[in-house]
Amino acid sequence: MRVLGVDPGLTRCGIGIVDSAPGRRASLVAVGVLRSSPELTVDMRLLTISQELDQWLDAHVPDVVAIERVFAQNNVSTVMGTAQVAGLAMVAAAKRGLPVAMHTPSEVKAAVTGSGGAEKAQVQKMVANILGLGELPKPADAADALAIAITQLWRPAGMLDKAERYQMTPAQRQWAAAEQAARKARGVR
Amino acid sequence: MRVLGVDPGLTRCGIGIVDSAPGRRASLVAVGVLRSSPELTVDMRLLTISQELDQWLDAHVPDVVAIERVFAQNNVSTVMGTAQVAGLAMVAAAKRGLPVAMHTPSEVKAAVTGSGGAEKAQVQKMVANILGLGELPKPADAADALAIAITQLWRPAGMLDKAERYQMTPAQRQWAAAEQAARKARGVR
Repeated sequence: MRVLGVDPGLTRCGIGIVDSAPGRRASLVAVGVLRSSPELTVDMRLLTISQELDQWLDAHVPDVVAIERVFAQNNVSTVMGTAQVAGLAMVAAAKRGLPVAMHTPSEVKAAVTGSGGAEKAQVQKMVANILGLGELPKPADAADALAIAITQLWRPAGMLDKAERYQMTPAQRQWAAAEQAARKARGVR
Repeated sequence: MRVLGVDPGLTRCGIGIVDSAPGRRASLVAVGVLRSSPELTVDMRLLTISQELDQWLDAHVPDVVAIERVFAQNNVSTVMGTAQVAGLAMVAAAKRGLPVAMHTPSEVKAAVTGSGGAEKAQVQKMVANILGLGELPKPADAADALAIAITQLWRPAGMLDKAERYQMTPAQRQWAAAEQAARKARGVR
C-alpha cells in the first residue's frame, strides 16, 4: 500500500509518499515541497501547483491520496488558497480513480505521536523515527505531508467496531476519538 | 470580446457567457448551472464540476474568465466548497492561457445596477434588460454568472486614470469605488 500525503498550501504545499512495510512499519518513498511564487497571479499559482501535483501522482502512482483537512475558521489570510490547493489535490486523485481521505491536524498528531495535542517538533521527530530517517525531514510542510500519509497508512480498519477497538494501540485509540469528534463537529455544522 | 462568468458553488455553479455588442451593449451566448450531487464525496463532486467547466470552456472559447470573489468570512458551511470551485475555474482558465478576473458581489451589483447595495431581484432584472431577454434567467446562480460576465465586459479601462474617471457613467464610478475599497481591504489583510 502506497500513500501520497498532501499538506496543502499555495506558497508551500508539502508532499510525502510512504509505503507500508511488514510489521506495522512504513518506508519513505519520496518527499518534497511544491512552491508557487507570490508574485504570480493566483490563477497561475494554482496552475503551477496543479501541474506539479499531476507530475508527482504520475511519477509515484499511489494507491490512495490523504490530504490535511482545512477548516474555514483557520488563518483567514491563507485559508482560501489552502482550500483551493486541497481541492486541486482531490480532483487530481479523483480523475485517476484514487480514493481520497481527509485527516484533521489533531487526527494526524494523535496517529503519529499518540497525542492529539502534540507539538509540531514532536510530530516531526516521530515521523523521522517511524521512517528510520537519520534527520528530520525539512521543511515542516514536507514532514507534515509524511505525517498525513502515515496517518492514512495506520488508519485502524475496524475503528468503529467495538470488539476491535480493544485491540487498538493508544495512538489508534486517540486517533479514533479525534476522528469521532471531528465527525460530530461536521454533523453539527 | 466574449466573457465567461462563473458564480462558484459546489451544489450549483452558475455559468454565463456574454459577447460585447456595438454601442455598449451585450448579448447572451449561453447560460446554465453545473451541479454536483451532495451524495457524492467532495472529491467526486469537484471532479464533476471540473469536467463540466472544461466542457463549457471548450465549447464556447471565451477571451476572458470572470469569477465571483469568495471571502473567507462568508457562510462557513459552504465557503470551502465555493473556494475550491473558484480555484478549479481559475486553473481551467489558466491552462488555456485565458486571463482571469475576480469581482466582488458589490462590484457586480454596482456595475449592473449602479448601486453596490442593490437587491438580488434588481440585479436579475437588470441582467435581463441588458441582454434583451424576455424573462429573468433562472436559477439565480445562472443570472449571477451573467451579471459577473457583464461586470467584466463593462470594466472601465482607465479606471485609475483621474482624467478618464470623469467620463465614467454613475455605474462605472460606483464600480471603481467598490473595487478600490476591495483592493484596500486586501492590502490591509
